[in-house]
This record gives sequence, structure tokens and C-alpha cells, in this order.
Amino acid sequence: MQKKSSLLALGGLMGVAALNAQAQSTVQIYGIVDAAVRHTNNQGPAGSPNGKLTELIGGGMSQSRWGINVTEDMGGGLKAIANLENRFATDTGGVSTPYFQQSWVGLQSSSYGRITLGRQYNVLFDLVTSTYASYPYSPYFEAYKPEIGFALGARADNMVKYMAEFGSFRGAVQISAGEKAATGGKTAGGYLRWAQGGLAAGLGYQNYEFGSGRKIEAWTLGGSYRVGPWYFNTGYGQNKVDSGLTQIDRAVLGAFWGGGANGGFGGPAFLAADKRDIVKLGLGYQITPQLNLGAHF
Amino acid sequence: MQKKSSLLALGGLMGVAALNAQAQSTVQIYGIVDAAVRHTNNQGPAGSPNGKLTELIGGGMSQSRWGINVTEDMGGGLKAIANLENRFATDTGGVSTPYFQQSWVGLQSSSYGRITLGRQYNVLFDLVTSTYASYPYSPYFEAYKPEIGFALGARADNMVKYMAEFGSFRGAVQISAGEKAATGGKTAGGYLRWAQGGLAAGLGYQNYEFGSGRKIEAWTLGGSYRVGPWYFNTGYGQNKVDSGLTQIDRAVLGAFWGGGANGGFGGPAFLAADKRDIVKLGLGYQITPQLNLGAHF
Amino acid sequence: MQKKSSLLALGGLMGVAALNAQAQSTVQIYGIVDAAVRHTNNQGPAGSPNGKLTELIGGGMSQSRWGINVTEDMGGGLKAIANLENRFATDTGGVSTPYFQQSWVGLQSSSYGRITLGRQYNVLFDLVTSTYASYPYSPYFEAYKPEIGFALGARADNMVKYMAEFGSFRGAVQISAGEKAATGGKTAGGYLRWAQGGLAAGLGYQNYEFGSGRKIEAWTLGGSYRVGPWYFNTGYGQNKVDSGLTQIDRAVLGAFWGGGANGGFGGPAFLAADKRDIVKLGLGYQITPQLNLGAHF
Repeated sequence: MQKKSSLLALGGLMGVAALNAQAQSTVQIYGIVDAAVRHTNNQGPAGSPNGKLTELIGGGMSQSRWGINVTEDMGGGLKAIANLENRFATDTGGVSTPYFQQSWVGLQSSSYGRITLGRQYNVLFDLVTSTYASYPYSPYFEAYKPEIGFALGARADNMVKYMAEFGSFRGAVQISAGEKAATGGKTAGGYLRWAQGGLAAGLGYQNYEFGSGRKIEAWTLGGSYRVGPWYFNTGYGQNKVDSGLTQIDRAVLGAFWGGGANGGFGGPAFLAADKRDIVKLGLGYQITPQLNLGAHF
Repeated sequence: MQKKSSLLALGGLMGVAALNAQAQSTVQIYGIVDAAVRHTNNQGPAGSPNGKLTELIGGGMSQSRWGINVTEDMGGGLKAIANLENRFATDTGGVSTPYFQQSWVGLQSSSYGRITLGRQYNVLFDLVTSTYASYPYSPYFEAYKPEIGFALGARADNMVKYMAEFGSFRGAVQISAGEKAATGGKTAGGYLRWAQGGLAAGLGYQNYEFGSGRKIEAWTLGGSYRVGPWYFNTGYGQNKVDSGLTQIDRAVLGAFWGGGANGGFGGPAFLAADKRDIVKLGLGYQITPQLNLGAHF
Repeated sequence: MQKKSSLLALGGLMGVAALNAQAQSTVQIYGIVDAAVRHTNNQGPAGSPNGKLTELIGGGMSQSRWGINVTEDMGGGLKAIANLENRFATDTGGVSTPYFQQSWVGLQSSSYGRITLGRQYNVLFDLVTSTYASYPYSPYFEAYKPEIGFALGARADNMVKYMAEFGSFRGAVQISAGEKAATGGKTAGGYLRWAQGGLAAGLGYQNYEFGSGRKIEAWTLGGSYRVGPWYFNTGYGQNKVDSGLTQIDRAVLGAFWGGGANGGFGGPAFLAADKRDIVKLGLGYQITPQLNLGAHF
């Protein structure tokens, strides 16, 4: 059996910044360390209707994370960029699996847009968070983010993503190699976004191929308007699943849809559904940009 | 069933230091990388009385660690502070579980003390290490640290800690939300410490509630005196356990008390005890501050 | 039973760089983030002879990694040095086990060479990569590195390594404490290397003691010549294994020899062998030093 390989390498050379006097290189350690005290009434099983729970939660406003950002100016309007980002729970010190929730490397051109390779956010997440997020002041209000339940897991492994801007428009496409894994993982999608003044609107599509070859398809559409301290937003999302999913396929779907952080969906009847729709309409008023206290680094 | 939440957020905004020109932000990567060769005679089971063992140990003087420290000046004597710290074994490259042994965020005021939220050292550890540690030159002499066996695990998850100083006195209180975990975890405690010249003394208390609702209570009391290269220290500690612990409770207690690093306690008879006392009296003489060779960063 | 310990501590003091005004300390975060798209024909089991596979692989040219390098000038030509290095897969964000593939601390003298303690590269890897690597432009071409299959795992835990240079010669010795682990781990070895102009040659030896006390011994010999863009290299390697390995010993050996990254060896018949030889002869031509695009940091 003969093997042939063709290789498109967008790789990193051996070397450290100090050795590259000719290149303008920036390495930035960044992070959000977030914790909050939450008191919930009527927590617990139905049998203890008055159960109260006081918790320290890791992430009152957003998930805690630390990461490394790299930008290297390669001349001619071209930059090499890379990002590593770990998520952790401030309250217990535990880290996410996989350790790096983002790990990608790419090239950014001032004229031709940007291409990135690796584990990264998918186009659905990019569109919704940039254009009509429920809570735009921080990456995500941890306690309620229904959009994520419709974003096919928000991130994907093995992805190549290309993004470009022209005038008030921004467009992106993504493709993930499936690699014949039991859990699937082949994806394709894209979005188109328009923004001007305080107005923004966009339309996005992405699919995901399960291990069995069956697919889930997601559509989303929405917009927002900012004026002074006010923020209006509306959005529509749909997830449609092929019939005949295997048990492994269902488990992957359950991870996409389930979990309280995704909006509290996830009961057995719900997960047996083959189609979900969401319509959201939101209104925000920011009292003061300095309301949140935090450790930016 | 209705849920209500009240949220005290001491959280981190989205943002990186470079974007906050108005704030004075410091991010510091720090660490201790420590390794040593140890040769032990008569190591091994009783049947091989002359067994010798030469080992490379990760941490001759202290546990190896790396971390990120953040300080951000918010004006008016107020600072946002955060810390992430991972422990690892230099000899094998393995890391601790949870990955971050410290992960907290807080506010420090020049007038009103300091409040921190997250996984962090408990008040017993803070008091003993600052006031009458057996080996004060490094965070801890890895090979012998009996105090830790009395410090209820040294760290706790889900903790809110408040510390303030007034003149020669320092006091702190801690509280950890139990979160109804099977292993328990609800704690409360505090200490009072006095220091002047080379003299220091303190008194501390902390409890820990097991999953069954039963408790362990710890008291400690001690002091030290430094004069020139000499260091005298003495301390008393007591752990008292409620009767009727469940098997899960016992396992948590075993983790607090057991392990060679905690002073070699931990036999079955010992762990069945409901009370432990320790009295220590120590004397140190520092030959030269430059005796230890190391990699400070 | 009496225990006596003798301790050679090459340890790290408590402290952070900012507190050591008298010492010149450098902390450097570095890394390689590497991803590539690979298309392989005839991938898969024999039954699907025309199977094709398009993958995003983490590491087209080299394994992705991030690390912390520390150098502290201690005066008198002496430096304290330390390194932590994690490997990860850019395509999925997963990290290596153990987390730190290198974790060592050491002393470097301008006159007396360098001693390092901890988990680190072994002498075989050091010799081959510095003197007659198949692909010298990056740490290692991920797709083909037969040398590694002969390098007894490339790294070892619990190692003390000493390296010194005299004129055109460089020599090193290593020793790892076995620590009586079930998988063994006691090693001893060394190399001698000569380099002048574009010519380099070297000879190395290392053994590894399995849990049963039986050993594997590795010899390697090779050289290279660089002239302009050309790179000629040749090398010989031999692994010889004691007879009578236990099943656990065989598993350790399988990890040394097996795996596609080590050159595709590893079938059952192969792993049953007690001796392996390799002769390699290589030729490289570097089109341009700027051919590779990457994120150096």
C-alpha cells in the first residue's frame, strides 16, 4: 500500500522572539480570573422545595481563562498570529478538557483577510457574539446564554477558517477535516455580517457530520442596535438533525444541546427531537462602564 | 419550582492590559523549579533492612511551581489582584490535580484590607507559615513539615477570605460555601497575629464540615523570635473530630492527615483517632543567605 | 528502622525576579504553534485500498509547544537556568502526559560546563539532533524521524546530566535514578561530539534498566556536512535488548520503539526482536531560509 502526502504547512519555525531582531514580535499573556458568590432559593430536587444553596462560582460574568497571544509582523501588511487559551474554574482550580480550548495559528493580511488553523471558535459563535449576543458587555454572561445551545458546541477541532472584510461587510467560511473519528467532526459553514453606526445584522449557516455520516444543520439570523447606554438585540436560530442517529451520534448531540449553561435544555424528550427553534429578543441598559470590578491582565 | 439568584460579583472584565491605558497593570510570571538528589539508607519494607535508594526528587527545599500574578491599580488606594499557581514535579514533569492549586481574584485596599475569592490557602496555613513555620527560609522544606498535617489540607475551594492589618496586628476570617458536595467542604475560621521587631505570635481556629454534616475543628497557637542568624519557633496544634464519621468523611480526613509529606502520620490506628495534638519547638541557624542555589523567576 | 538522608540540593529559593535587584534574571515565554493540512491517499486498512484522508494535523514541521525559560546571572561566570516545556496538539487543544515534557533546573558555568536535574532530553537525542539529524531546519520534521525510534524515548525522568565543551569537542554524561519503579528507569550514558566548520561527528551510548533489572543498550554514531544550502548526513544506530524481558518490560520497550512518529516500526514480530540496527544517509537542500511561515514567540 502506497502513501502519498500533500502538505500545506502554515507552521511555526523553531526560534524565540529574542532571536528575531528583524521581526516585530509581541507575546501577550492575558486572562480573566472571575469568581462570584451566588445564593439560590429553591435549589435542589423537588422533594426539598425550600432548599437554599450558597455557592462560590468560578465566573460570575464570564468563564475564567488564561492564554498566550502572539503577533509577529512579517512585513508587507502580513502578520503571523497565534492563540492558546485555557479555561479554568476559579473556585476549585480545575482546568478544562482539552486543556487548550483554543489553539490556533494563522496569517493575517491587511488586504486579503485572515486564515487560521487549529481548534477555534466556529462561525456560528463568531457571528452571534459579534452581532447579536444576549449580553455583549463581557464575553458571555455565564448564567444565561441560550445562543450557545444552538452553536453546535461553539468550537471545533481541526478547523481551517478564512475571514475577510470589505467595507461594512464581513464574511467568513470554515471547514473541519472529519478525520474519520467515531464522534464525527467534519464541518462546513460560513456567515455574512453587516455593521454600520450602531446597527449590525448577520446570517450564518454551519453543519456538522456525525460519526455515522448523518448531519446536523444550523441556521441563525439576527441583529442589534446600540444607542447611548441602550442595547436592543434579536435573533433566530434553528438546528435540524437527520433522522437515524446512532447512539454515539446522540451523545455528541447531547453535548451540543445539553447542560444548564446552554440555556437549561437537555431533557430526554428534548434530546429525542430532530429540530429546535429559538427566537430571542433582548434589551440591555448599561448603567456605567465601570460597574464591574475585575482583574484584567 | 422557582429560582432566584442574588449575585455578588467580584469578576473580571473582558480585556487585556494593553487596552487599559488608564490603569496601571502588572502581570508577573513567577516560579520555583527545584530538584535534588536524595540518598536514603534503610529505605523499603522491613524485610530488606539494608535497602538503599538514590532518588532525584522534585523539590529539595520546596515544591516546584509556576504561576501568574496580577496587580491592577484602580486608583484611590484600591487594587485588583489575582493569582494562578500550578504545582509540578521537576523530576517527572507531572502536574498537580487540580491543575491550579491556587486560583483566586480579589480587591486590596490600602485602608480596608483585602478580600479574595476562589481556591486559596486557608487561615491555618497563612498563620503558621507567616508566624511560626518550622523552616521559614523557603515556603516549606519539602521533607518535613508537620504543621501541614494539622492545617486541614492547607487550601480550600470556594473560599471567601478577608484580611486586615491594624498596627502590629493582623487578622483574617475565611468562609467556604459547602455547595452540598459529597466530600463536604464548608469551612469557617480566622486568626489573629501580632508581630514586632523579631517577635511574632498568633492564634488561629478553623473548622471543616464533612459531607455527613459532621465536623473537624482545628486550633493552633505559636510564636517565633528571630535574632541575627538565629530563629526560635514553637507551636501547638490540635485537631478534634466529631464521632460518627462516614466512610467518605474518613477518606477526606485521611487526605488531611495522611502522607509522608505531612509528617509521616497516617497509619490505620492513627486515622481512627478522633483527636490529635502536636507540640513543636524549633531552632534554626542560617549559615548564609546565599547558601541555596536556585532559579528564581 | 532508621532513615538517613543526604541531600544535594540544587534548588530554587522563594522569590520573584522583581525582588532580586542584585541578580540579572531573564524569564522568557516561548513556543511553537504549528498546524498543517495533510491529504493522504490509500490511508486506512487494506480492505479499503483507495481510502483518502484529509486531516488538519497539529505540527506540520514540528510538535507544538509552549514553555518558560529562565536564566539568572549569579556572577563569576555562573548562571542558574531552568526550563519548563509543555507539548500540545494545535488541532485539538489536547496536552501531553506528563504535562511538562521538560522540567529541569541547573547551573551553567562559563568554565566548568553545565549540570541539569529533572526530566530532560537524554544524551542520544542531544547527540543526534545536534550532529546528524535527518531534518535539521526545525526541531524535528514530525512526519519522519527514524532516529527517535532508537533514542530510548528521547527523554528521561529523574535525570542528572553534565555537559562540557573543550575546543571543538563537546561531551556529556547522564545518570537517572531508577527509584525502584515497576517500569524501571535507571539510565546511564554519554556522548562525545566534534564539530568544526561545516563538519560534525559524534559517538554516543546509553542504557536503560527495566523493572526486572534487565537492560536495553543503545549505540549511535554519525556525522554531517553543511556547505551552502546543502546538508549531507549519515548515521548508524543499534538497540540491543537483554533476553528474558517481562511483560511490563516489553510494554516499556514497545513505547520506545512503537508508534508511527518513530518511523513506523512496531509490529508484534518486530517488538519481539532483541536487536535493531538502522543506517541512514540523508541529503537536504534548503531553498530559502524564509520558506516556512510561522509564529515564533
